Amino acid sequence: MSYSGINEANDAVVAKILAADCYLMDVAPAHTVIPELQPRVLLHAGPPIAYADMTNPMQGSCIGALLFEAWAKTEEEALALLNSGAIRFIPCHHVNAVGPMGGITSVNMPVLVIKNKEHGNTAYCTLNEGIGKVLRFGAYSREVVGRLLWMKDELGPAMSKALALMEGGLALGPIVARAITMGDEFHQRNIAASALLLKDMIPYLIRAALPADQLVRVSEFLGATDQFFLNVMMAYCKAVMDAARTIREGCIVTAMTRNGREFGIRISGMGDQWFTAPVNTPQGLYFPGFSGDDANPDIGDSAITETYGVGAMSMIAAPGVTRFVGAGGFHEALRISDELQNICTADNPALAIPCWNFRGAPVGIDIRKVVETGITPLINTGIAHKKAGMGQIGAGTVRAPLGCFEKALEAYAEKLGVA
Amino acid sequence: MSYSGINEANDAVVAKILAADCYLMDVAPAHTVIPELQPRVLLHAGPPIAYADMTNPMQGSCIGALLFEAWAKTEEEALALLNSGAIRFIPCHHVNAVGPMGGITSVNMPVLVIKNKEHGNTAYCTLNEGIGKVLRFGAYSREVVGRLLWMKDELGPAMSKALALMEGGLALGPIVARAITMGDEFHQRNIAASALLLKDMIPYLIRAALPADQLVRVSEFLGATDQFFLNVMMAYCKAVMDAARTIREGCIVTAMTRNGREFGIRISGMGDQWFTAPVNTPQGLYFPGFSGDDANPDIGDSAITETYGVGAMSMIAAPGVTRFVGAGGFHEALRISDELQNICTADNPALAIPCWNFRGAPVGIDIRKVVETGITPLINTGIAHKKAGMGQIGAGTVRAPLGCFEKALEAYAEKLGVA
Repeated sequence: MSYSGINEANDAVVAKILAADCYLMDVAPAHTVIPELQPRVLLHAGPPIAYADMTNPMQGSCIGALLFEAWAKTEEEALALLNSGAIRFIPCHHVNAVGPMGGITSVNMPVLVIKNKEHGNTAYCTLNEGIGKVLRFGAYSREVVGRLLWMKDELGPAMSKALALMEGGLALGPIVARAITMGDEFHQRNIAASALLLKDMIPYLIRAALPADQLVRVSEFLGATDQFFLNVMMAYCKAVMDAARTIREGCIVTAMTRNGREFGIRISGMGDQWFTAPVNTPQGLYFPGFSGDDANPDIGDSAITETYGVGAMSMIAAPGVTRFVGAGGFHEALRISDELQNICTADNPALAIPCWNFRGAPVGIDIRKVVETGITPLINTGIAHKKAGMGQIGAGTVRAPLGCFEKALEAYAEKLGVA
Repeated sequence: MSYSGINEANDAVVAKILAADCYLMDVAPAHTVIPELQPRVLLHAGPPIAYADMTNPMQGSCIGALLFEAWAKTEEEALALLNSGAIRFIPCHHVNAVGPMGGITSVNMPVLVIKNKEHGNTAYCTLNEGIGKVLRFGAYSREVVGRLLWMKDELGPAMSKALALMEGGLALGPIVARAITMGDEFHQRNIAASALLLKDMIPYLIRAALPADQLVRVSEFLGATDQFFLNVMMAYCKAVMDAARTIREGCIVTAMTRNGREFGIRISGMGDQWFTAPVNTPQGLYFPGFSGDDANPDIGDSAITETYGVGAMSMIAAPGVTRFVGAGGFHEALRISDELQNICTADNPALAIPCWNFRGAPVGIDIRKVVETGITPLINTGIAHKKAGMGQIGAGTVRAPLGCFEKALEAYAEKLGVA
């Protein structure tokens, strides 16, 4: 071990998290930046899973991706192709990427390219499609695929042209630091960060000399998509945590993700290994006409936000979101963050939360503290209908299962020879 | 009296405040919408005051306005004209307008045109110039006047063209309701509302087919001016309170304003009459190189925001601002709003404050409660240098003086025959 003890190793991991300096560099077709993304390959959320084992909404996203890529002309053709085993699957996390909900990412989808300049690494995430019937929640209707095609043909290239006009990309740190003082927790609420991003992008979108009708559509979409920054934040957190996990010591959680069946975590001292346990099903509030009976179990890479210390970990930053996810009022938000800081290592001085009397967001989940206290990370999440094609039906909170933290701690103890 | 008692009259005034429905209709040259604004006429902040009695920064603003209008070519010419008595002054409040700090408004300055559709009345306010050396804080350098000319020639007309493309103007209620959940209190912090306004305006600014370089300058100015919405909110509050004060009964405060010498209030039951007392000097934090010795006494119509129940009255909505104005941390913000709700009549359900466990902003300052408790309204304010030409030197808080509330209560008691 290169450090004098676990605490010192953990402090080094946390220091690497706090030193991160992320920029939005480009929006590019996925295959141009992720070489593993070839025809007949899809990325998915969570730890590894076979097509047959995926829950329905992730399978629905696969159908949508095949229609989007024109690898299939109909739902039936897509299903035949998927069932034939002709499509190869890779977890997003294995190729420097993250994907919300199903996380299904295909070659021609535009992805955000976010560079952590402190370390030099890059992370990727698809663009947010808005809410309701969207691919990430398992919908694949003509409307859903049509929006994805527009994002490929117009939104992605427009953002790419604008970003090319900025020297060195768009600094995300200032946006994140401001937005956490504006009621965003960056998982279920990103309205401030999305508006601040638009504010920074607009002059460059104008300078990019797009046709006026295109500029109107792009600015209206960015203006109307209050969760646009979620995907930016996901790639931001992935870029931060991937840099931090180059320190292969200590027991800080470096990834949390769910594939609809299993909740997987990685810890700094165990490198690329996944430790998994069955996922829980979110509890929350449902859109009219839906209930908990319709809810898919926990799914998506978006828990990378909680891994970094925002989302439900910083619930007190966003008392406005506690009602949206059915988690009570201001005092419940305070109770949640007060509880969750017990399993973390430090406060993030770059993310001062006014409602928490300017205390920084909790950072560095230590699996020892999780196992000792039995307090597992809480995740703010969208809720997908358990049937493919239906899309988002609500939002809520869900606990990470204790089992994966126990397994990780056992494995780490064994590695250190103290088991 | 048309009501069964003072409480019932006050409830009617408050109901009128809560029913307001304000839209940004246009940005127009001041003289085109305020007929009283003729050549050689200036509007000023606060209750009536003669040029000779104005504090230095308001006089500095007058010099700037004369240079802006080309009524004078030099500072000396401007001073000569002002000292000659050739310039007539009218309080903004007397012509449906409000003006920040000095409040100096001249014929060709573009003003926001905000209509309260519930009542049909309209209110006006100049555009926010940004921070530092700006006219409203008494600066009048070439840079200051140059920016005003750009606002007249480019920003105002661009906004006017964009607003003309909207059916019925831009609804402000949704922006205000959202922004109060995003850490704005609308006096010293308007970053969220300014970003949301930009988000709504941008597609229309693009559709207005401005030259690209103009569109870049306008969007950059709106994006960089975090206090842009302050002036919008001032006219919004004026439109709300002017509608409410058509009910000429009860003892709800319908205006609070300061001219640098006197703090003036109006109450519903006493119509247009001003009740004044000497202003206090703000306490707060200063920009580097300045101190309380440099501070001008309290000045400006911006206390119309506190009259409506935001600003310092809703300090708890913006714990981020409490540090900026030197008023402590989260708990101090909570203490301030908890105290100030004691002098108000109701909570504003349209302005739910997450940090206050979703309680609405306090509304309807009742002068009886002010006099009984001795708690006077607190104002969040910018601080002007006491010398003309220097501009803003800090931000802080200031109490309304008790004297004007006592005078108003005596006059109202006399009117009711209970004195």
